[in-house]
Amino acid sequence: MNGAESLVHSLLASGITTCFSNPGTSEMHFVAALDRIPGMRCVLGMQENVVTGMADGYWRMTGTPACTLLHCGPGLANGLANLHNARRARSGIVNIVGDMATYHRPLDAQLTADTEGLARTVSGWVRTATDAAQVGAEVAIAAQAARTHPGQIATLILPADTAWNEGGEPAVRLPDPVAPQADPHAIRGAAIVLRTQAKVLILLGGRALRADAQALAHRIATATGARVLAEMSNARVERGRGRPQLERVPYPADMAIAALAEVQHIILVNAKAPVGFFAYPGKPSLHYPPGAGVHVLTRYEHDPIAALTALADELGAPEAVIPDPGPRPEPARGLPTPEGLARCVAATIPDDCIIADESVSFGRGFFQETHAAPAHDWLQITGGAIGCGMPLATGAAIGGGGRRVLNLQADGSAMYTLQSLWTQAREKLPVTTVILANRKYQILLGEYQSVGANPGRTAMDMLDIGNPDLDWVKLAGGMGVEAAKAHSLEECADLMKQSFSQPGPFVVELVI
Amino acid sequence: MNGAESLVHSLLASGITTCFSNPGTSEMHFVAALDRIPGMRCVLGMQENVVTGMADGYWRMTGTPACTLLHCGPGLANGLANLHNARRARSGIVNIVGDMATYHRPLDAQLTADTEGLARTVSGWVRTATDAAQVGAEVAIAAQAARTHPGQIATLILPADTAWNEGGEPAVRLPDPVAPQADPHAIRGAAIVLRTQAKVLILLGGRALRADAQALAHRIATATGARVLAEMSNARVERGRGRPQLERVPYPADMAIAALAEVQHIILVNAKAPVGFFAYPGKPSLHYPPGAGVHVLTRYEHDPIAALTALADELGAPEAVIPDPGPRPEPARGLPTPEGLARCVAATIPDDCIIADESVSFGRGFFQETHAAPAHDWLQITGGAIGCGMPLATGAAIGGGGRRVLNLQADGSAMYTLQSLWTQAREKLPVTTVILANRKYQILLGEYQSVGANPGRTAMDMLDIGNPDLDWVKLAGGMGVEAAKAHSLEECADLMKQSFSQPGPFVVELVI
Repeated sequence: MNGAESLVHSLLASGITTCFSNPGTSEMHFVAALDRIPGMRCVLGMQENVVTGMADGYWRMTGTPACTLLHCGPGLANGLANLHNARRARSGIVNIVGDMATYHRPLDAQLTADTEGLARTVSGWVRTATDAAQVGAEVAIAAQAARTHPGQIATLILPADTAWNEGGEPAVRLPDPVAPQADPHAIRGAAIVLRTQAKVLILLGGRALRADAQALAHRIATATGARVLAEMSNARVERGRGRPQLERVPYPADMAIAALAEVQHIILVNAKAPVGFFAYPGKPSLHYPPGAGVHVLTRYEHDPIAALTALADELGAPEAVIPDPGPRPEPARGLPTPEGLARCVAATIPDDCIIADESVSFGRGFFQETHAAPAHDWLQITGGAIGCGMPLATGAAIGGGGRRVLNLQADGSAMYTLQSLWTQAREKLPVTTVILANRKYQILLGEYQSVGANPGRTAMDMLDIGNPDLDWVKLAGGMGVEAAKAHSLEECADLMKQSFSQPGPFVVELVI
Repeated sequence: MNGAESLVHSLLASGITTCFSNPGTSEMHFVAALDRIPGMRCVLGMQENVVTGMADGYWRMTGTPACTLLHCGPGLANGLANLHNARRARSGIVNIVGDMATYHRPLDAQLTADTEGLARTVSGWVRTATDAAQVGAEVAIAAQAARTHPGQIATLILPADTAWNEGGEPAVRLPDPVAPQADPHAIRGAAIVLRTQAKVLILLGGRALRADAQALAHRIATATGARVLAEMSNARVERGRGRPQLERVPYPADMAIAALAEVQHIILVNAKAPVGFFAYPGKPSLHYPPGAGVHVLTRYEHDPIAALTALADELGAPEAVIPDPGPRPEPARGLPTPEGLARCVAATIPDDCIIADESVSFGRGFFQETHAAPAHDWLQITGGAIGCGMPLATGAAIGGGGRRVLNLQADGSAMYTLQSLWTQAREKLPVTTVILANRKYQILLGEYQSVGANPGRTAMDMLDIGNPDLDWVKLAGGMGVEAAKAHSLEECADLMKQSFSQPGPFVVELVI
């Protein structure tokens, strides 16, 4: 057995059965091994940020790491932005990066790069194998590392000779790491704050945004008068009918500071005290009042269900009914507005829809209008590196077991990873993409104006992406995805509804 | 004056007048300064590998660094693959990377990343400013670093507060570095080898591939019976009618080893002794005979003209006529073949054309058929990171002063940076792209078969990019570039010729 075969056997033994890939010459022995050994679903992406973003979406829906297969330092570099987003989502991913043969590396051939240095910028675990006999054991450790709570990126670099040399030894699955439990003192401390203090905010992040944890937080809040919010950017929020009507900390600095102005205590549940996405001259970096008490109930790696259950019990909080969000909205009509589009989404999505949201500036109010939608999952861009939405939607569809995915997608960000549409067509995935075609980097225009001026010609050369306008019907068609333009909300709602009833991908270009 | 304004003044003073950009929020003060201070041409790319690849192409044609404007660690990460290619081309580029404000960075907001760590993997010079007052001086040093022979990547990271704070001080241009001269002993040593030894190969790279240096090498070779070759991958070769009929070291290992089998001495002129692009089991990593003598005439940073002139004089080599390449070929007809396409290129290109070649597997024989074409420049992918050709063509057009660019472009690689077409449309650039649509990663299929097997279903899932076929007419149209399909060489030649007579970009999808 060669090293490549031991890799595939060890991945499968470790429960990794999906490989998002864009291989190159140095990975051909891995491709050959994947071809010979059944059990791995291999999905090609035509650029590596598509590959890594799919792995992120897959983890968010399954809680199981996928592996990626990437080509040397530059192939990894091409996927780093979405690995950055995955790192911020705390997703578990096993990157397999092929590289120069051990003895060839010192010759500094053209593709030679600092692969380890690149990997280290996004990974919780990095190792370079030097011997075919190690590969199996290394991959088992990498899979375990990826599953370490709350999830992390493990990168295994495999020089080509570790693939083709004989002596590979398949490894068995290592024990899954167990989520640590919160400190009992933290639970008692939080209970004291909630019992004795006013203006307490319970801030939920990560795993605490699943429905069960939200219900516990709602129960605690109902008993104590505390407020509950989600962090600004979240890997996955379970929401819609039957779930608490949770809002997020706003993105714009002024709005976030206003929303948190009254807070005197923050209890962090798998979350971090809110800071600005960026600094701005004369504005504070901390978005909560500097005098507020910050109390950590659970860190990212902790089990929030056990901690929230213990906290609710400690408080003697009775069961609390989740309030009804009111009737499901009717689709809105007329010219596209953020609220109107959100109502169309709430009115049309099927049960158990997955929403991949990279709507950027247009989408800030989407939560409010979609509380009465059928139960769904909402995935956000977590690291601020644009080009996340379409790969995330693609990977979520692959991990979603047939659930429909709706990708609400800003046009400027879409252009970063539009190759995702081709994978959607190839794999016949149930993804509806609504391109929010405002034809500018709207978020930057807003930021520019807040710098104090109206943009002149040179600034518009860098902020406006009209001239020429993108035609998303042609772009999607060029990659084998059916598409149509919508100029009104009713057209958009009709096209979305149609797409939900059909298999395979569809793109709506909503001109806004 | 704030730091951002001092940046723009110092860039302009340092002779940097073109900015390839994809800015974000942390760069808004730079955008505002570029808007207020005239003199900088700002060109937007819709993904950072487009931006950095354009800067590479610009340098290759002008020998003057452009600057890039990139957004934080992930924005830089997105452009690293083409910076890797630029590093291997030894191109001079000044990267300006905005980042978190100095005091905001410790808060680890979502976009915070190891920007310096990423920059270090491709840069010869990296610095992070910490104060608005430093920015001007830093940029002058960065510009000087980029011009250090043969050219290198200088990355200046600017935290947002160094842009918006007052106290900026514009800097004057620092002296341009002078190329060092070759060691006189190396010149005498090479002369002795050439005079006394047989089977000598003069291997040219970098600056030694301009017409003047090639003519000197030809003169030396004619006088001594030595052979002259170019390295396998080159930033820019001046060639065509009036230039020596120079061939390259072949890419496939077996062909390279065969081509160099008789060599007993290699004289390196701004080049490196040939090694394999990759290692292969049982094949040598060095592609020249292990017993051959390797003699360094000039290193990358040396002035090859002075060294070759001194060497020719030392040898008393008489002037040598450049042989006539024969009549200009007629365009080929019928089904597309590599040789036929090369003849169509030779038959149709206008004078002083720039050819950006990312033809990968299809293009290995292009040189032989194009010696009799009008004088032209040939730019190659230098670092093996695919997705280089279209950005390179775009940047070469901007730096080319109106010269026509022909981009011979493999389809799989084209998908990496297809956003380049939008910039070509926006800037109305004279670029003709011929997409070589074989609908597979052909180079990898060849590599796979050499691993010893015919690809099965899983392997084809990763190597075949048909299913669905890409439609490049639609993709180009979606970005505002006119396009047409060609199924035969005569159709292709007609479309190329038409495009050469019109301003602006055009895409030919050549189905092969």
